[in-house]
Amino acid sequence: MTFEEAHELIKQTLPEKRYIHTLGVVETAERMAVQFGEEVEQARLAAMLHDYAKYFDVEEMRRVVVEEGLDPNLLEYGDELLHAPVGAILLSRQYDLDDAVLSAIRNHTTGEPGMSRLDQILFVADAIEPNRDYPGVDRLRAEVERSLEAAVVATLKQTIEFLLKKSVRIFPLTIETYNDFVNIP
Amino acid sequence: MTFEEAHELIKQTLPEKRYIHTLGVVETAERMAVQFGEEVEQARLAAMLHDYAKYFDVEEMRRVVVEEGLDPNLLEYGDELLHAPVGAILLSRQYDLDDAVLSAIRNHTTGEPGMSRLDQILFVADAIEPNRDYPGVDRLRAEVERSLEAAVVATLKQTIEFLLKKSVRIFPLTIETYNDFVNIP
Repeated sequence: MTFEEAHELIKQTLPEKRYIHTLGVVETAERMAVQFGEEVEQARLAAMLHDYAKYFDVEEMRRVVVEEGLDPNLLEYGDELLHAPVGAILLSRQYDLDDAVLSAIRNHTTGEPGMSRLDQILFVADAIEPNRDYPGVDRLRAEVERSLEAAVVATLKQTIEFLLKKSVRIFPLTIETYNDFVNIP
Repeated sequence: MTFEEAHELIKQTLPEKRYIHTLGVVETAERMAVQFGEEVEQARLAAMLHDYAKYFDVEEMRRVVVEEGLDPNLLEYGDELLHAPVGAILLSRQYDLDDAVLSAIRNHTTGEPGMSRLDQILFVADAIEPNRDYPGVDRLRAEVERSLEAAVVATLKQTIEFLLKKSVRIFPLTIETYNDFVNIP
């Protein structure tokens, strides 16, 4: 699948606000891929497709989790987690995409211990793209200037603190990812 | 083991500052047990003994974890976690103590999903006793006036936020406990 084909698909699939967010993620992921010496075309493609399934029917997405034998925890921790792994599955069924691109899409919401640098770029770019505006976003943007790993840790902390503030349950894989990246016992 | 025997043991075992902290936990746990209708004598005894192993040799405590087949994660997440489960084991070997008291001692640092109300009282009392002084402690004290469960959730949040600020790894059981008590998917 070319970037232009992906662009056309996403333009047709997402509502305008989410499409504008996606263009921000593409721009940010591209800049980060250059900065950190990763594959720019893979970063752009993963960013363009990352929210493909964002507005898909929740019951349909839950069925895919069961059919495909994905982590059953996904059914217990809030429906916002579904679109990333389910999006990666649905895209892989219909289009020819590199595993590296699918992995970045799959992990962009929860993170994963040991995730690749391309995964890390999308994970951070999604949180800091120029249209994002929440307390602390500028601190995350500043971390990108330090290192990719520092930005991943800061993004994970931001995510966990946000869930704590809302008294919402925290997906275990996100804590495992945080523990993997801080790695201070 | 009577409360006075426990008092004598702890006075001999702990350095003065930790002994004073312990008296604060006893006072707070007693007050909370009255407030929430739990066994006052069990709460006082568990509070008196909760830090029994706090200054034991770390290598010795790690050996107990292995010998007794305790959660091997305990060896991977910082030595401050050891004294609670190891203290409960060592006390049970030497003294006659109710399971309810040993359970409260075992769970007072990490928490545990589904922990008993006596466990919850010690978990919170340890964090809010009068000698504790850190940003947010008064907010925790206020939660006790709302409900025991609210105070447990607030104490778990405080613990997790503290670890995030220090970029220290978070013990999985503590997240499982938080997820169990907030129970919002």
